[in-house]
Amino acid sequence: MKLSRLGEFGLIDRIRRKAAVGRGVRLGIGDDAAWVDHPRGSSLITADLLIEDIHFDLKWTSLKDLGYKSLAVNLSDIAAMGGIPAYVMLSLGIPAHFESEQIDELYRGINSLAKKHGVTVVGGDTNMAGSLLISVCVIGHPINRPIRRSGAHVGDDIYVTGTLGDAALGLSLLRQKRRRHSRALGQLLTRHHRPTPRIAAGALLARRELPTAMIDISDGLIQDLGHICAASRVGALIQQDKLPLSRAYRELAGKTAMRCALSGGEDYELLFCAAPRQRKRIEALSSQASVAITRIGTCAPVASGIGVVDASGAAVAVKARGHDHFKKQ
Amino acid sequence: MKLSRLGEFGLIDRIRRKAAVGRGVRLGIGDDAAWVDHPRGSSLITADLLIEDIHFDLKWTSLKDLGYKSLAVNLSDIAAMGGIPAYVMLSLGIPAHFESEQIDELYRGINSLAKKHGVTVVGGDTNMAGSLLISVCVIGHPINRPIRRSGAHVGDDIYVTGTLGDAALGLSLLRQKRRRHSRALGQLLTRHHRPTPRIAAGALLARRELPTAMIDISDGLIQDLGHICAASRVGALIQQDKLPLSRAYRELAGKTAMRCALSGGEDYELLFCAAPRQRKRIEALSSQASVAITRIGTCAPVASGIGVVDASGAAVAVKARGHDHFKKQ
Repeated sequence: MKLSRLGEFGLIDRIRRKAAVGRGVRLGIGDDAAWVDHPRGSSLITADLLIEDIHFDLKWTSLKDLGYKSLAVNLSDIAAMGGIPAYVMLSLGIPAHFESEQIDELYRGINSLAKKHGVTVVGGDTNMAGSLLISVCVIGHPINRPIRRSGAHVGDDIYVTGTLGDAALGLSLLRQKRRRHSRALGQLLTRHHRPTPRIAAGALLARRELPTAMIDISDGLIQDLGHICAASRVGALIQQDKLPLSRAYRELAGKTAMRCALSGGEDYELLFCAAPRQRKRIEALSSQASVAITRIGTCAPVASGIGVVDASGAAVAVKARGHDHFKKQ
Repeated sequence: MKLSRLGEFGLIDRIRRKAAVGRGVRLGIGDDAAWVDHPRGSSLITADLLIEDIHFDLKWTSLKDLGYKSLAVNLSDIAAMGGIPAYVMLSLGIPAHFESEQIDELYRGINSLAKKHGVTVVGGDTNMAGSLLISVCVIGHPINRPIRRSGAHVGDDIYVTGTLGDAALGLSLLRQKRRRHSRALGQLLTRHHRPTPRIAAGALLARRELPTAMIDISDGLIQDLGHICAASRVGALIQQDKLPLSRAYRELAGKTAMRCALSGGEDYELLFCAAPRQRKRIEALSSQASVAITRIGTCAPVASGIGVVDASGAAVAVKARGHDHFKKQ
């Protein structure tokens, strides 16, 4: 049905009827504000604004995947603080030509991930817009003290969850229109379209107070490591041969070699630092969190900056910068 | 400075340095998520997405006013639940040609209102976009039980704060380019550009548990009254001659007469219902909240719908609908 027939309030009602309601929601969609419980005395809040043709292209992304990913990137931010996500505010700008079934499709993606993590869409705003806009705000609860970017020390180990570079390599191959649909390419594209927020890993790490600093990799390993280093006033030395790569990445990386793993964005893996004495506890945690956790380097004095070395110990030149929304690159 | 020179992280840093930090903020702008205190066990959350050329036109609105208003409309939603606003997440989509000073100007408007109410911008997202996008999410604390739209009873009095129609009349005169800048027009335009969220009135009403239902008037009196009536399953009878009008409105309304007061949006006054036995307490509250509170009608049985009568008791025809973002009008 055309949205112009359904109308704003018809659409809101349709969204409300389809939304799953989780714990803690006293009042969800449909009043001036949502009203929610907080089991703990403090909250974590994060937000992202996704804009058509800047962050996504509907030629290459289904609305269902887009809905999933819009929520996933915010859940990932809560995970990176060592928190548990709870409530979602979702505001949409919708082109006039959209059909209500397309909005249903977007919500199907959102709801599938929301259900998995017991989070609820409690409100938002719907508007007409020239292109599709998705603004997400997620509120969560910290486990113990939230893990900031600023606590890393010289000598700390540096770890990542999962594998690196898959999302960026998948996107790059998609853009090259090398669309022979191999299984490996499919796996990379799934990583690009449906990243896994590492909520269980983040929560376990926070519960045991293991990381000294943590961030999620949205802009690329080197750039996001740069945020930890800047906030913690440390440098870092990364061992390139330790970077965890998926089988699909190894199969398809070709000439890009390590570039996507070092500088490619949108992996939404956790990057964290921890004292060397915690190695055994972190190894043990990997199987509980159902995700690989790999030690990839060490925090160095701030003066040494961020360096990457290959297996022979020789310095590797890396583009220090992943993504900046404004700077001309 | 061009944003392309300052860069995304330069801009975030600039915003962070200029933001006033209020109570309860453990960690504001600059990490994966903000971390905030909740003095009470539950929260109110509201969000709005404002889109250039849909919700505002930079030809007619200064960036400072736009910043002010973007926050005001969200604070108004918290006021309409009888809550106190606390934290703001602000996501921006910024055209590439913008200068950083223009973003400063937007923040000047936001910060002036934020300071007044002790709220803090704790985070958000900044992106490049084709046109200016402002996405605001506000988190607040309820006072007693939040006041919903659904509690009105047949026989309840209907009240509004302040005066009605000023913002819509001001905008309409602006669009007619009748820009002889009289003092009265200036007053109407101030009401359009810098609406006053009725936080003190909402909080006092909630503290004394006076309203049975409450909403803020964003889409026009009749339409927003319609939301209360639908949620509470009541009808309403409004006495047109009781509608509170400003002197500026009376001076400039001309042929539009009561149309803006009945159906014009963006007044951001509170509309609420209360039992007749509360009349004296509500009168007394008006002076404490420093805003007029006017009784304008009565809740009727649902079957009678929403009616408006003039001073002689004759029915007045009104456009039932204020604004719908999708429906063709």
